[in-house]
Amino acid sequence: MQQPADLLTSHGLDALWVTKPENVRYLSGFSTPKDGLVLLHKEGALLYTDARYTEQAKEECFIPQHIARHSDVIQHARTLLEGKVVGYEADALLVNKLHQLAGLQAKKLVPTEGILEARRLIKTPEEIQLIRQAQQIADEALRQALPSLRAGVREVDLALQMEVYMRSHGAEDRAFDITVASGYRSAMPHGTASEKVIQEGELVTFDWGARYRGYYSDCTRAFPVGEISEELKNLYRHTQKALNLALEAIKPGVMTSDLDQVARGYLEEQGLAEHFVHSLGHGVGLAIHENPHLARFRPDLPQYNVPLQAGMVITIEPGLYVAGVGGVRLEELVLVTETGCEVLSHAPFAEV
Amino acid sequence: MQQPADLLTSHGLDALWVTKPENVRYLSGFSTPKDGLVLLHKEGALLYTDARYTEQAKEECFIPQHIARHSDVIQHARTLLEGKVVGYEADALLVNKLHQLAGLQAKKLVPTEGILEARRLIKTPEEIQLIRQAQQIADEALRQALPSLRAGVREVDLALQMEVYMRSHGAEDRAFDITVASGYRSAMPHGTASEKVIQEGELVTFDWGARYRGYYSDCTRAFPVGEISEELKNLYRHTQKALNLALEAIKPGVMTSDLDQVARGYLEEQGLAEHFVHSLGHGVGLAIHENPHLARFRPDLPQYNVPLQAGMVITIEPGLYVAGVGGVRLEELVLVTETGCEVLSHAPFAEV
Ligand SMILES: [Mn+2]
Ligand SMILES: [Mn+2]
Repeated sequence: MQQPADLLTSHGLDALWVTKPENVRYLSGFSTPKDGLVLLHKEGALLYTDARYTEQAKEECFIPQHIARHSDVIQHARTLLEGKVVGYEADALLVNKLHQLAGLQAKKLVPTEGILEARRLIKTPEEIQLIRQAQQIADEALRQALPSLRAGVREVDLALQMEVYMRSHGAEDRAFDITVASGYRSAMPHGTASEKVIQEGELVTFDWGARYRGYYSDCTRAFPVGEISEELKNLYRHTQKALNLALEAIKPGVMTSDLDQVARGYLEEQGLAEHFVHSLGHGVGLAIHENPHLARFRPDLPQYNVPLQAGMVITIEPGLYVAGVGGVRLEELVLVTETGCEVLSHAPFAEV
Repeated sequence: MQQPADLLTSHGLDALWVTKPENVRYLSGFSTPKDGLVLLHKEGALLYTDARYTEQAKEECFIPQHIARHSDVIQHARTLLEGKVVGYEADALLVNKLHQLAGLQAKKLVPTEGILEARRLIKTPEEIQLIRQAQQIADEALRQALPSLRAGVREVDLALQMEVYMRSHGAEDRAFDITVASGYRSAMPHGTASEKVIQEGELVTFDWGARYRGYYSDCTRAFPVGEISEELKNLYRHTQKALNLALEAIKPGVMTSDLDQVARGYLEEQGLAEHFVHSLGHGVGLAIHENPHLARFRPDLPQYNVPLQAGMVITIEPGLYVAGVGGVRLEELVLVTETGCEVLSHAPFAEV
């Protein structure tokens, strides 16, 4: 990482009060970041947490720690920040906590967004290795669940089976509530597993991931149960084609909105674009959704459109959702490389 | 509930912008409250959520719904709030969202805390029934896990077994990361299950709960594996005595700090109070920790000391933690009744 002093100076700050859990973990290594915060200042960084975590913090952190009760943190930090220009994360600080920051007696409190997120855009080899492992655990979870996929099984039971596999094979947790969406429910982009019983002739969407040492994975597959309709098969094949076209187009320098358009343009040609109701993908790392956004260009949000760079980890996840028919989404987790990309997800695909 | 108009008037507000998930669920019945908000105004209440939840909201909500994209919510709400005095929940609104509220063109934006929490203090019979069911699922999860408790088993495997039981028997989720803390780890008040292997002669703390239709349960037990030391047995028996003394003292009118002192005073007499490092208990409902706080009287926080009232649901959870020896916590979930209390938790106790 750029030296803290340079990073802060470039934003006109003397220090940054870091409360977003993934940024706290990024800066410290502390694995319970919701119960800590990091003060980033020009000489370095300091983790604050409470006495429950003294030993854990000592073991995990690569920055110094200060153990204090909540009420004492401000008092301690004031000795470092009084009269200084102090940034805080406006998208990760509650209004009532902002009132507490007045106690720092800073010269100025500056709302910021995205400073550390910009650093997290390019992954180090160590980070890539952790994401790879998170995805491997997830790949295997689908493999061991697929034999249970048949008519008569409830969605929630498959989801639970996958989660149990991941958590008993090294995952800290599921990455998010697992989607298992069958039949009419597959037409919903966010079909968290329900008690619905899967039926013959349905297509079933799985969207799942693991969290491994703080890092996430994310992958989507769709599998038919028995024989499915020609209409569903068509949706499946066009989604797969859109996915592959986008994967082939990935390389450094390609703008994220242009990549989105590769998939969307193909679906437009097929007269299906109206059913692709979300964006193409997103970055993955210490958060399940992070920069970059892979989406259509929006004139009101030009900052979302950035060139791909080697070291980014992104998802490519075209989907088609047709009410009354069903839906398909297929998602790969991808590392952008110097020459193109490496697909990190290796979960099996259906043959449709 | 008191009529919205009266509630708002008593706080000098024309409306309240409700973003705390448990309050959103309380006011609407919406089961995905983190993706919604409620506008409480003098004529009633309105749920805002997005198009992913149109059908779900229609099915679940007992108040009207308005479906809109995030960017359109402020625009719609402005027609109701322009020129009005609008409260917001300062402990449940991010600073950058507060900036968006400027778009409401309210006469005044007022930070508030605890308005709806005060309403949630006394549970309705329907709420009590849901908490009862959440606790029943949890009771059974321990019963079916106990046969697996033996030397050689990992803490995480027991925790996962309990969670799987709860989620496959109606629970929406675990109430919190389950504590299974054995041997030296039982000396930590918050020992989320680790990969530690349980050994002969250890005492094992279980702290777990279920979430059922939004409502939580919370319970703690400790079980020996084989023969444990006299020192641990003593800690166990004194904890159990402190628990029972506190349970016997519960009735409407008793101040929460006095109830805390019933348990703490007993442990003081035994020379053990220094090892009881947390408060006696907390309210449970749509949040796992809510009002009232059952804790020592603090002159700087006099508002935490309130009289018990019939209809409160609270935990009683004395614990003793001795570094190098181990720890014990025992927790019951309790309904305050007109004449005393009813213990809602029925998980078995060890015989020590
Ligand atoms: Mn995704
Ligand atoms: Mn508790």
